[in-house]
Amino acid sequence: MKSLNQLIESIQPINRLLEPAIRAHLDQLTKPPKSLGRLEDLATQYCLITDTSKPNLGGKKIFTFAGDHGVAKEGVSAYPQEVTPQMVRNMLAGGAAVNVLAGHAGAELAVIDIGVADPLIDAPGLIRRKIKPGTDNIATGPAMSLEEAGQAIETGIELAFSAAENGVTLIGTGEMGIANTTPSSALFAALLPCPVEDITGRGTGINDAGLIKKVEVIKRALKVNQDNCTNPLSTLAALGGLEIAAICGLCLGAASARVPLVVDGFISSAGALVACRLCPQVKDYLFFSHLSEEAGHATFLRIFKAEPILDLRMCLGEGTGAALAMTVIEAAIKIYNEMATFSSASVSEKA
Amino acid sequence: MKSLNQLIESIQPINRLLEPAIRAHLDQLTKPPKSLGRLEDLATQYCLITDTSKPNLGGKKIFTFAGDHGVAKEGVSAYPQEVTPQMVRNMLAGGAAVNVLAGHAGAELAVIDIGVADPLIDAPGLIRRKIKPGTDNIATGPAMSLEEAGQAIETGIELAFSAAENGVTLIGTGEMGIANTTPSSALFAALLPCPVEDITGRGTGINDAGLIKKVEVIKRALKVNQDNCTNPLSTLAALGGLEIAAICGLCLGAASARVPLVVDGFISSAGALVACRLCPQVKDYLFFSHLSEEAGHATFLRIFKAEPILDLRMCLGEGTGAALAMTVIEAAIKIYNEMATFSSASVSEKA
Repeated sequence: MKSLNQLIESIQPINRLLEPAIRAHLDQLTKPPKSLGRLEDLATQYCLITDTSKPNLGGKKIFTFAGDHGVAKEGVSAYPQEVTPQMVRNMLAGGAAVNVLAGHAGAELAVIDIGVADPLIDAPGLIRRKIKPGTDNIATGPAMSLEEAGQAIETGIELAFSAAENGVTLIGTGEMGIANTTPSSALFAALLPCPVEDITGRGTGINDAGLIKKVEVIKRALKVNQDNCTNPLSTLAALGGLEIAAICGLCLGAASARVPLVVDGFISSAGALVACRLCPQVKDYLFFSHLSEEAGHATFLRIFKAEPILDLRMCLGEGTGAALAMTVIEAAIKIYNEMATFSSASVSEKA
Repeated sequence: MKSLNQLIESIQPINRLLEPAIRAHLDQLTKPPKSLGRLEDLATQYCLITDTSKPNLGGKKIFTFAGDHGVAKEGVSAYPQEVTPQMVRNMLAGGAAVNVLAGHAGAELAVIDIGVADPLIDAPGLIRRKIKPGTDNIATGPAMSLEEAGQAIETGIELAFSAAENGVTLIGTGEMGIANTTPSSALFAALLPCPVEDITGRGTGINDAGLIKKVEVIKRALKVNQDNCTNPLSTLAALGGLEIAAICGLCLGAASARVPLVVDGFISSAGALVACRLCPQVKDYLFFSHLSEEAGHATFLRIFKAEPILDLRMCLGEGTGAALAMTVIEAAIKIYNEMATFSSASVSEKA
């Protein structure tokens, strides 16, 4: 993992020395100081990440990684595994929620097969980066090898770098993978850490009995893999998913390239958490798009001390939360760049 | 006020019989049922208001009413009264926050002089509907006569009707008027009702001593006007503002024309509350855009049982919250109209 270590070392702290100049500019705009609240904070964070007091919003792009999960055979999801490739095709055809919301946000959508069980023959537009056709069952052993986890991370890093080189200035995460709230909850439990019950929800809508089983499966996964979970990377390999590893890589790559990244919901937060455990500086490069309705997400945000932008009781994933939050971040940058100042508009300041 | 009574009688309850068909459509879209949370609720409300299960989003328009307040001379604001016409000119020139956010939302902005003290000579683009050059001081008597309040309401009604006739399908409220949180708090205290202390905040940023004085001024206004406050209309005339009355009219007109209306923040909520007290059915036609950082707004939303769409710690007014919330409502309509269904996309449904 030499190149991963080098990448991590390349990630710089954001430039907080710029903050007074950024805040001074915001206070000169024709509004009472701080009266745009979070919009002012979001614009400031965007400036600090991109190391400028004159921010530029270029392209926006959402990366939705699809992967399958061996643990699906434990019956932890309300939907069958065949839905993963079906939804990939739906995204490629433009019919999924993330297509609609990415379009609304003016963001490009990339759909990546990082580990779908189905071969996805004849799927035009699909970005093919399959590491393997689904992870192994975490309830009986590790999800993947360290090498496979590393490859998935590298894929995310590469895609972030490529986006940065092509003028993307705001990256969003997304995922699709039946059963993927289960490995996400397992990762949160291991890496936050926290009790399994506090971080496990109903995913796509399992009933009470299903939730009890899901908690039991995650506890089993933590137990059988306990010797494998010696550091963030080995924990990711043991308990995670290929799309979660790729999202981890996307976060690392974005931070290295100083591109702001919008974390979608529950599963994306698991990938972001691994990235932050590998390199704590990454956190400053991340916007947390929304508080997911998935029960454990509030637990994560509280323990990790991250404040979501939106709370619309959504729990769909795919990148839908990231897309909506991009519209708010873009609004914040426009406020910063386009408003008149007290002097330019000849408006009297506060007495 | 015969025509106002006729208008109020014209307002129909929204058509709740459509809700099962609307929800059934949402449940057929390729996502777990209810997984888009508030977006699904917003799309449903929009459909019910417009009396269709096939919603159409046409033009969006924000009406920002400007007016001055005699009570400003009590020293209840952090800014001098001259800022009202200065900010009107700033809006006409495109430099205010609401210009930026309306542009971001793709909404047209109309700026209306409903009662600015300054004559606003040579202000191209201004919609001139001045009822009088500012209200009288509510701390010593009524803000305006019943006739003046009625004229301001009529202006709002007319503008809503005109917008509806011109293809606007989503209306937003906005306002500008130095000191206008003071009459707003007075109206909330009288009409919710609630204690003055629970509904009075710092407006554009007064200090602790200013807040104590503001509470005292509002209590004085309630006391000197208590005989005038016999019904919602007379209370509005006694304690309100011309822009608040116009916003009240905009809500009534929108409801009569079955056009969904997005209520901006604290001051707009006061206008919306008067409209709902005049005609309780109006509430179903309103989207409450955001929870304002202005201290009393949470009190209003709690007592009035209204759920805001956004919480971004904003407290600027002008229509800024309405503009941002419009982007979320538009996203909801697009979800409803543009997503594939399980059958059209050949995606397996929940087991």
